[in-house]
Amino acid sequence: MSTKVSDSTIRRLSHYLRILETLERSGGGTVSSTHLAQAAGTTAAQVRKDLSLFGSFGKRGLGYQVADLGDRIRGILGLDRSWPVVLVGAGRIGSALFEYRDFRRRGFEIVSVLDRDARKVGVRWGPIEIEDAATLEAVIARESVEMLILAVPAPAAQEIVDRAVAAGVRGVLNFAPVRLRTPDGVFVHNVNMVMELEALSFDLTSREHGLEVGRGD
Amino acid sequence: MSTKVSDSTIRRLSHYLRILETLERSGGGTVSSTHLAQAAGTTAAQVRKDLSLFGSFGKRGLGYQVADLGDRIRGILGLDRSWPVVLVGAGRIGSALFEYRDFRRRGFEIVSVLDRDARKVGVRWGPIEIEDAATLEAVIARESVEMLILAVPAPAAQEIVDRAVAAGVRGVLNFAPVRLRTPDGVFVHNVNMVMELEALSFDLTSREHGLEVGRGD
Repeated sequence: MSTKVSDSTIRRLSHYLRILETLERSGGGTVSSTHLAQAAGTTAAQVRKDLSLFGSFGKRGLGYQVADLGDRIRGILGLDRSWPVVLVGAGRIGSALFEYRDFRRRGFEIVSVLDRDARKVGVRWGPIEIEDAATLEAVIARESVEMLILAVPAPAAQEIVDRAVAAGVRGVLNFAPVRLRTPDGVFVHNVNMVMELEALSFDLTSREHGLEVGRGD
Repeated sequence: MSTKVSDSTIRRLSHYLRILETLERSGGGTVSSTHLAQAAGTTAAQVRKDLSLFGSFGKRGLGYQVADLGDRIRGILGLDRSWPVVLVGAGRIGSALFEYRDFRRRGFEIVSVLDRDARKVGVRWGPIEIEDAATLEAVIARESVEMLILAVPAPAAQEIVDRAVAAGVRGVLNFAPVRLRTPDGVFVHNVNMVMELEALSFDLTSREHGLEVGRGD
């Protein structure tokens, strides 16, 4: 079978998982779609619809087994394993990301940090030493990494991605304010903080234009 | 008139604006929807559709006047003014955001940083001094701020937002890994880096499940 899954469904699965893991820590048991819905800011019907995409869970009226549903969602999201990640760009955003504990907690481990600035190469960040961006391909092979976090200036981003993809990277979390071109089968998620503020600015201005923001993603 | 505008349209407007500003710096002139489409990773038809939402621009076959279209999009996005912003949370992500030059370049100026940690209050960050989160309402009034950047731990987020909204904030860029509840007329954009990696993890795993990621947002 091939099921289409929207990015917003994936986002909600992440929210459901957070709730389930809180419940797991407090002993598990069962949880209702209504409870999951509230915490994820959606409806119970949406929760049932989301989960039904991946097979049937839970029993009508009995709710979902917390531990079982948590395992299933971790499996769906590919979080039943750990992911080594390479970070390119040892600037301010890169260092904030490197220190971001929630990544490791979730199984995403930054195993190498690269930068092209000779003054940064060799500098120790905790357990690792910043490597030369020129060695990107070797690092990707050495660590058999499929995920890249890109925190370099816009002009450098596409070249890094092209090299990373040629070396086997299949997923990129991109912080560079540029639209990356990648071949099919390579996934890019963009985090552009300025564009988020621009969207907020539109939201706060839109009424004056007689515009409304469409709901949804 | 009231036009529905999707978040993805807003995102594309931000991309168009970046291209237009590059062209403005190199002298302006005109630009085709095809050129705008390429740089924004979309189609010329989509560009025309997006722009038509806001009235008619350009002339068939002649393309768009770079300077004129740039002004119009800045007006639509509310970027023809500057936005004072309050940042709550002087941790690693907060400091990376504070140092992020692209915000000011775009007219978003972090005019105050607040934290509840007494060891941080009073510390100088460049031109400003970290203020006590207890004074949030006073700071919002003093700076007549409508935008808040929230970079605090999840458990602290909702209370800060409730107070900020009561004090007049209408837009929140939220980095706390939690779904915020806000009244109508208050806009929240979430940046959750762990969830972005979880979505990537799903992308890289989905084939094994016979799943496909739906295109679009």
